Amino acid sequence: MTTQENMQNSKFHKLFLDELKDIYWAENALVKALPKMAEASTSGQLKDCFTSHLEETRGHVTRLEKVFELLGVDAEAQKCEAMEGLIEEANEIMGNTESDTMVRDAALIISAQKVEHYEIASYGSLCALAREMKHQEADTLLHQTLDEEKAADQKLNELALSSVNEEAASE
Amino acid sequence: MTTQENMQNSKFHKLFLDELKDIYWAENALVKALPKMAEASTSGQLKDCFTSHLEETRGHVTRLEKVFELLGVDAEAQKCEAMEGLIEEANEIMGNTESDTMVRDAALIISAQKVEHYEIASYGSLCALAREMKHQEADTLLHQTLDEEKAADQKLNELALSSVNEEAASE
Repeated sequence: MTTQENMQNSKFHKLFLDELKDIYWAENALVKALPKMAEASTSGQLKDCFTSHLEETRGHVTRLEKVFELLGVDAEAQKCEAMEGLIEEANEIMGNTESDTMVRDAALIISAQKVEHYEIASYGSLCALAREMKHQEADTLLHQTLDEEKAADQKLNELALSSVNEEAASE
Repeated sequence: MTTQENMQNSKFHKLFLDELKDIYWAENALVKALPKMAEASTSGQLKDCFTSHLEETRGHVTRLEKVFELLGVDAEAQKCEAMEGLIEEANEIMGNTESDTMVRDAALIISAQKVEHYEIASYGSLCALAREMKHQEADTLLHQTLDEEKAADQKLNELALSSVNEEAASE
């Protein structure tokens, strides 16, 4: 059997495909949301962080399309209710914190970390399923994105700490 | 100034309170969702994991009520769109995977890990804000929950791996 046949015969095939469609919707939604988050940021470092993560996110979309191709199916998005909720929360925060730029930046970091953690859980599960289905190529591609999402979360952690330190220094 | 006054005067007070109300809604929603997830699980270990996490989750609700008390405000829930989406996804999965118990268990683990990661991001941010606001007691309480959420995620990781191993062994 080819790898593709192996995957399609696996009992996990449909679950894997459903999870892929969900994160494909989520990544595409983020491509639209991140420029607004960059624009709403005051700190130059946070703005740069969102802008460079936008580039990475476009790469994640492309990688997912490669995984669909490996599965022999067309790339398809399936609305991800959780990511929709996360982006709605970020939009609300941008509306509610206009009066204080430091609070808005902190709120944007919180929103972004929730998004990163959703993606870390999602890609972690996709990698486990790909390994289970013995699809090395899909696992490798998904793992590259997983590592980038973890690094983005770590970068946001550092920005959150530096923002706290700035606040402490200004007292 | 008392600690309570310190917190209320902080520019982060409203953001902290909004995040608390969000996770208070989320934890209460989980108290309702976890028994269904335990019931839908086939593996005894997964069932036990959900049942014991239900007990922990009830404790998280109580801890949040203590934090509201420390802030001098009534405990109040604010609908968390992201958690509503996560629970909806879990419900859909339970409906879609009735035919294969191993796939359903894997899908339940994926749903639960997404929930845990939402909570890890949320409590991590709440702890950072509590520290920023110099509220040691709130930070300590929220940190206890953060550690329990991380342990729950780790436990689910182990269950996912053991389910993969079982699958590998049965081939």
